[in-house]
Amino acid sequence: MKAYKANILYTPTPERFVLLEHGYVVVGDDGCVVDTYASLPDEYSNIELIDFGDQMLMPAMNDLHVHAPQYRNLGIAMDMELLPWLNTYTFPEEMKYSDVKYAERMYRRFVHDLWKLGTMRAAIYTTIHPAASCLLADILHEANMGGMIGLVGMDRNSPEGLTNTVEQWREGMEQLMIHTASMPLISTIITPRFIPSCTPEMLNVMGRMAHDKQLPVQSHLSENQSEIEWVKELEPLASCYGDAYNRYGLFGQTPTLMAHCCYTDKEEFELMRRNHVFAVHCPTSNCNLGSGIAPIRRFMNAGIPVALGSDVSAGSGFSIFRAIHYTLQMAKMKWVHSNHRDMFLSLSEAFYLATKSGGSFFGKVGSFEPGYAFDALVVDDSQLNFDNYTLQHRLERYIYLGDDRHLTHRFCQGQEITAPRIV
Amino acid sequence: MKAYKANILYTPTPERFVLLEHGYVVVGDDGCVVDTYASLPDEYSNIELIDFGDQMLMPAMNDLHVHAPQYRNLGIAMDMELLPWLNTYTFPEEMKYSDVKYAERMYRRFVHDLWKLGTMRAAIYTTIHPAASCLLADILHEANMGGMIGLVGMDRNSPEGLTNTVEQWREGMEQLMIHTASMPLISTIITPRFIPSCTPEMLNVMGRMAHDKQLPVQSHLSENQSEIEWVKELEPLASCYGDAYNRYGLFGQTPTLMAHCCYTDKEEFELMRRNHVFAVHCPTSNCNLGSGIAPIRRFMNAGIPVALGSDVSAGSGFSIFRAIHYTLQMAKMKWVHSNHRDMFLSLSEAFYLATKSGGSFFGKVGSFEPGYAFDALVVDDSQLNFDNYTLQHRLERYIYLGDDRHLTHRFCQGQEITAPRIV
Repeated sequence: MKAYKANILYTPTPERFVLLEHGYVVVGDDGCVVDTYASLPDEYSNIELIDFGDQMLMPAMNDLHVHAPQYRNLGIAMDMELLPWLNTYTFPEEMKYSDVKYAERMYRRFVHDLWKLGTMRAAIYTTIHPAASCLLADILHEANMGGMIGLVGMDRNSPEGLTNTVEQWREGMEQLMIHTASMPLISTIITPRFIPSCTPEMLNVMGRMAHDKQLPVQSHLSENQSEIEWVKELEPLASCYGDAYNRYGLFGQTPTLMAHCCYTDKEEFELMRRNHVFAVHCPTSNCNLGSGIAPIRRFMNAGIPVALGSDVSAGSGFSIFRAIHYTLQMAKMKWVHSNHRDMFLSLSEAFYLATKSGGSFFGKVGSFEPGYAFDALVVDDSQLNFDNYTLQHRLERYIYLGDDRHLTHRFCQGQEITAPRIV
Repeated sequence: MKAYKANILYTPTPERFVLLEHGYVVVGDDGCVVDTYASLPDEYSNIELIDFGDQMLMPAMNDLHVHAPQYRNLGIAMDMELLPWLNTYTFPEEMKYSDVKYAERMYRRFVHDLWKLGTMRAAIYTTIHPAASCLLADILHEANMGGMIGLVGMDRNSPEGLTNTVEQWREGMEQLMIHTASMPLISTIITPRFIPSCTPEMLNVMGRMAHDKQLPVQSHLSENQSEIEWVKELEPLASCYGDAYNRYGLFGQTPTLMAHCCYTDKEEFELMRRNHVFAVHCPTSNCNLGSGIAPIRRFMNAGIPVALGSDVSAGSGFSIFRAIHYTLQMAKMKWVHSNHRDMFLSLSEAFYLATKSGGSFFGKVGSFEPGYAFDALVVDDSQLNFDNYTLQHRLERYIYLGDDRHLTHRFCQGQEITAPRIV
């Protein structure tokens, strides 16, 4: 058992921060929070106390949508349209992951950069390649960080050299499940790339596996208009894009992440609400590709869970802190475009999405309430705090102006995480 | 005379980069570029050669819209609406600049942060306070950086304690002009805060001074809908918001910067084109305040000059590199919202806005063509360039992923600029 002393910030609810100036978090040997305190209770007077001085201590970031094999393409070709971007950059890059040596070099950098920017858990797409996907699990496990890894299924409308058969995908997933079974913070997730790239047979097998193994699901949803039209053609019996997943048991029958949801209509909205499907908001990606702005306020008002994703490499950075400020900015844009009907978000709401809301997909993660995994960041913002800002303003300035230089300690499930090795 | 060797990038035209791998820039003793070369001509074989190895060398950034006295508020209260943000944060902060000691502490940090992020010249709003404004000129001059400083005029619809009379403003400007007369890179600029905060008398005097002293002008234009309505009420004879300035000789009669232009209509568009008025695009500010997205593609197509601004502190950072990537992102958003009618921008176009287009307001600034001031940045992107990226991709990755850590040298008018002192 240990106690950490610092300026503590977290959001048990979206509405407001809990702020404890020079407060304490007590963490049990299981890596979970016992509780937070304004002053340390006598019963803990003999446990080890780590004092972070005037630094801030907050829940770590969770990235609920990221493509690990697009690591090399981060920050390039951002002035292209979706299709040339996919065909010229994304697909050729993903093909390289048949080479495990290449995969290792890139995946180690990928895990390092998650760590560097303060993301301790992520829901990750790999490629169609089981060996490279198992390797990513090894690297994440070696780093003591958490995540769900999804071997991508794609057996139609995909470039040659980047497709798998239903049988290959199924065997690859079983291999990945066995491989990760002994890794406490790593698990697998069913990952159809999206409806257009999966045959009904593939979707059927995926839905059955989700049910039989009780595995979660992740995919893309209603990212842009032409994609929605395409899905209508491919799945004419589905009442909306989301229903195309739903008909195969891939839309909330087990916990489900759907990235983007920029153009979710009434029907899909209701289906997400009923099935408790997560909308994963990836604002930098939506800006870079010119997808549109997801109606996050409406999702939140309806009780649809919302998380944040970097969507590297359509997203232009790993920082979920950056995703927080883009979320606030895009909510302001939605506000003005809706003639002020859709209210924008508060800082605490956006922070909640990145921490407790996103974290909930991994269990009790993303808060400092009792029983939550101690996933945490220590932030030395002394250079930014030159004029006695309030604690909430210090956090806000860090979110807008800070970077990895200010992160001095990172914890996942109670354990301090040091820089993962790169090769 | 000196020669610099590095990987050189610049944009003489918006359409494409000039890229010189391991090329040379020869700079004269007047601080201006003689020319760039793929290999060094014999005639320069005896001049001093500074070799930056594999680093990138590019024109420095120009910030054409920034409020220096909002420095302290950078990155706070970004989840508020415009009016509470102004009344609770901005106006009370600007009032503090009657205190020259306070002004010095903040203005030194302001200049330091411009420098840190690679901005060598800026068009700056101060406050109504002449003494603090002269002090900012001193600090910028001491740093050997360039800029235009505008004492703000505001004599109506403004909070008590933050207004000046026409006479006070005129005297303050004359004081500032005398004060900066001997500073080669510093000059003054006529600065009505915006139409609603200036009486016709103030605007009259400003227009006359712009004409008599041949001074440039900067203000705000068509930032949001309610502001436009307000201007219509205040200046019923004006055919559009821009015409309200135009009627007083403050709209292109001398070189003019107008920030935002999110809702510029046909009439205003034509007036800007005819009068060669700059649209200063401040994308992070427009996102943070939920103003809207300026039609940059349309401005560029019409030949209206466009520059970029940080608009600190409504904008959430000093980095004009960040403004470049937000410009690209917002252009993609405009593209999708216009049903793909308004084409988005290319990387070279956005870079051009930040360098040669913005720089042109200060003279021959922002390019490495012969005769241009050598305002330059040296970027060590070796950590980002781990996989043999092309030179243009290296620049793009720096723009999306880089920060001040990667800037190793900064030049303004041929002189290397070291970190300005803070107190």
